[in-house]
Amino acid sequence: MLVTGTEVLTGIISDRNGPWLSERLRELGVDLARIVVVGDRPADLLDALAQMAASGLALIVTSGGLGPTADDLTAAVVASFAGRELLLDASLESRIEQITASVSERWPEADREALRLATRKQAMVPEGATVLSPRGTAPGLVVPPADGAGGPTVVVLPGPPSELQPMWGEAVGTAAFKAAISGATVYRREIVRLYGLPEAEIAATLRSAAQAGLSLDALEITTCLRRGEIEVSTRFEPGAQADYDTLLAFLAARHGARLFSRDGRTIDEQVASLLLAGGETIAAAESCTGGLLAARLTERPGASAYLVGGAVVYSNAAKAAVLGVDSGLIAQHGAVSPEVALAMARGARERFECTVGVGITGVAGPAGGTVDKPVGMVCFAVVQGAVSSLGGLRSLIRTERLAGGRAAVRDRSTTVAMHLIAALLHGERD
Amino acid sequence: MLVTGTEVLTGIISDRNGPWLSERLRELGVDLARIVVVGDRPADLLDALAQMAASGLALIVTSGGLGPTADDLTAAVVASFAGRELLLDASLESRIEQITASVSERWPEADREALRLATRKQAMVPEGATVLSPRGTAPGLVVPPADGAGGPTVVVLPGPPSELQPMWGEAVGTAAFKAAISGATVYRREIVRLYGLPEAEIAATLRSAAQAGLSLDALEITTCLRRGEIEVSTRFEPGAQADYDTLLAFLAARHGARLFSRDGRTIDEQVASLLLAGGETIAAAESCTGGLLAARLTERPGASAYLVGGAVVYSNAAKAAVLGVDSGLIAQHGAVSPEVALAMARGARERFECTVGVGITGVAGPAGGTVDKPVGMVCFAVVQGAVSSLGGLRSLIRTERLAGGRAAVRDRSTTVAMHLIAALLHGERD
Repeated sequence: MLVTGTEVLTGIISDRNGPWLSERLRELGVDLARIVVVGDRPADLLDALAQMAASGLALIVTSGGLGPTADDLTAAVVASFAGRELLLDASLESRIEQITASVSERWPEADREALRLATRKQAMVPEGATVLSPRGTAPGLVVPPADGAGGPTVVVLPGPPSELQPMWGEAVGTAAFKAAISGATVYRREIVRLYGLPEAEIAATLRSAAQAGLSLDALEITTCLRRGEIEVSTRFEPGAQADYDTLLAFLAARHGARLFSRDGRTIDEQVASLLLAGGETIAAAESCTGGLLAARLTERPGASAYLVGGAVVYSNAAKAAVLGVDSGLIAQHGAVSPEVALAMARGARERFECTVGVGITGVAGPAGGTVDKPVGMVCFAVVQGAVSSLGGLRSLIRTERLAGGRAAVRDRSTTVAMHLIAALLHGERD
Repeated sequence: MLVTGTEVLTGIISDRNGPWLSERLRELGVDLARIVVVGDRPADLLDALAQMAASGLALIVTSGGLGPTADDLTAAVVASFAGRELLLDASLESRIEQITASVSERWPEADREALRLATRKQAMVPEGATVLSPRGTAPGLVVPPADGAGGPTVVVLPGPPSELQPMWGEAVGTAAFKAAISGATVYRREIVRLYGLPEAEIAATLRSAAQAGLSLDALEITTCLRRGEIEVSTRFEPGAQADYDTLLAFLAARHGARLFSRDGRTIDEQVASLLLAGGETIAAAESCTGGLLAARLTERPGASAYLVGGAVVYSNAAKAAVLGVDSGLIAQHGAVSPEVALAMARGARERFECTVGVGITGVAGPAGGTVDKPVGMVCFAVVQGAVSSLGGLRSLIRTERLAGGRAAVRDRSTTVAMHLIAALLHGERD
């Protein structure tokens, strides 16, 4: 995979296409050998293509460099690499014109001549290439090697994920693409997720598995820490399915409930299912996370079936005014305390008239830490009960000391909260 | 830059180190040639190192592959690449033991022998390498080429950004690092940002600049769309400063206020400065963005100086109960309407007792769109006035039709809101 764009290479934006395309290739059973990011210099692009060809790769997917500005030059470089002439595709030009007509409507003061030149530039196509319908203004391309020349087929896609992703299916359907990946080995990948243990424990588990005589050689196992969870990803050819099943049973026996996902489902999916299945409604009361938990709970389409709302209560006055948190409680225990987290969770449930309330209050840093309440200390509470019930709530309360900077503490706090919600809905009680 | 990790290559996580390191290298005046991502297979790692050495690169920075599990093998591969033996560093081993002692405290049931083996693995160092103090449990390394052998110096850093970033300064300070980058060309990079025009307009502007006789050859200009804004980044050697200054004046003359940032400052930084300078306090009322605006406003340390709170009001009942939005207004105009956005903004300002209130309500999709109110239609309102004032509020109201899927609509909505806040604080009125 070849990602082009000085803006990616120089760190202005991080690439979101590589991971997405990688996943799509895996689904096709195509083994991704490497991702290379280069700037918008023709020589660097051509070098990268030549190195990949020299390595004998069958397929190169490029992203970026198809826009209307002069630094967008992927189509021309790939044409040169494939030994194909760049020609104007008149019917493509008129399709792009139709698309930009709506742009003209939206930006009535835009320069007509600029749009015309941009359209012409984006309608230049290597001879013999298949054009993929533009989703923005940039068409994609599937460029086979020049007749009889051999070498990789190049799939040329635009940089914006919203344009690249809907174009992928069309690329995969072309004859040139199918020819390039014929003979690719099919791999499976399974993911399991664990929460509440250090990564070294997984290293120990895998060593134990080998010592216990499990056959692991056909399994490519990688573990990584992600948002406070451990993700164990295993890639294997279909023949090794039994080896994988044995490993999974071993993990389950050793780690019990800490192996919270055996099928790759995320905690977000599990929480959504639990809320839906129980007919629960939920509201979040957030201090240090500042809305990130509500945003996470509303990430999925259809979230309105369970998420009623949330309150970001940064100031003590807001905690009192919006959620009814007793100011005496804050004075006695401090804004960052299990007592206030619980009052916030109760307040959210009552205020938003729902069945589940969540409270998060902590010190995200970098300032505001004390000896008793250092940066990274975050208090959580989740309560559950019928909308009308005043007492008798079920609850879980936790205080965690989270590592990392402000962004990490805020992000990991949402993970802790998601696991606490899941635990309560699974029937756990303090 | 060599990013290792099957979890990055296979798309489970996206790499955050590449962009960060790229920026740090640029500050040192080092030109980044390419970023290569490979999986956790020793042969792939070694190949990538050899290809980079063959290209004559002076410095290779690796990230990842230093963890306690068996798939973490960067130190061993780099030792082999540099022709240096891997030896146990006993003092490093005891330092890591001290660090893991606190892990043991936190996870009292962890397997002692597993921790001991993990510690020993992480204390293996290529002979002649400089050790960088571990921030988690993994030490970094600066590995010069074997004596008299030539070739690149390799800086080996851990994968987690929270461990890699604090280690960078120490790496830069080593003699081997300084020797490797001596003679690097110093580049400057300037960024300007525009909002409210299509990317093709920038292409037209740059063509006009060339036609007007501006000297652009020494400027490497890249443009990209980012979160609904256009970012123009220009890289040049110090001698081309005058050329850049002329280009900047040309951009300013042509695009006026749409060029909202001439110094690279983001709209987030500008909004924070405006709020602080005016002694303003702010609260957000969000429907479709579900907390993302509050989260964005609280991303920066010290946000409590102006952000009082926010309300996520997904249901109509919550809009009424928490923000006092008249249910008749919702019945008359619909929940997604300028009228309701304004009522939400007013409700947020009153409820949270602050000077600025923001309201966002829209159709994020994929479901819920109608002919009149399609997916992507989002209504915004910002109001401003003294905390005690009941009438006479200054306000700005906008309705936008945003492109892209659910995540893009939600994210871009926060950008529109930030620009609307800035416009109001700059004195713009409807």
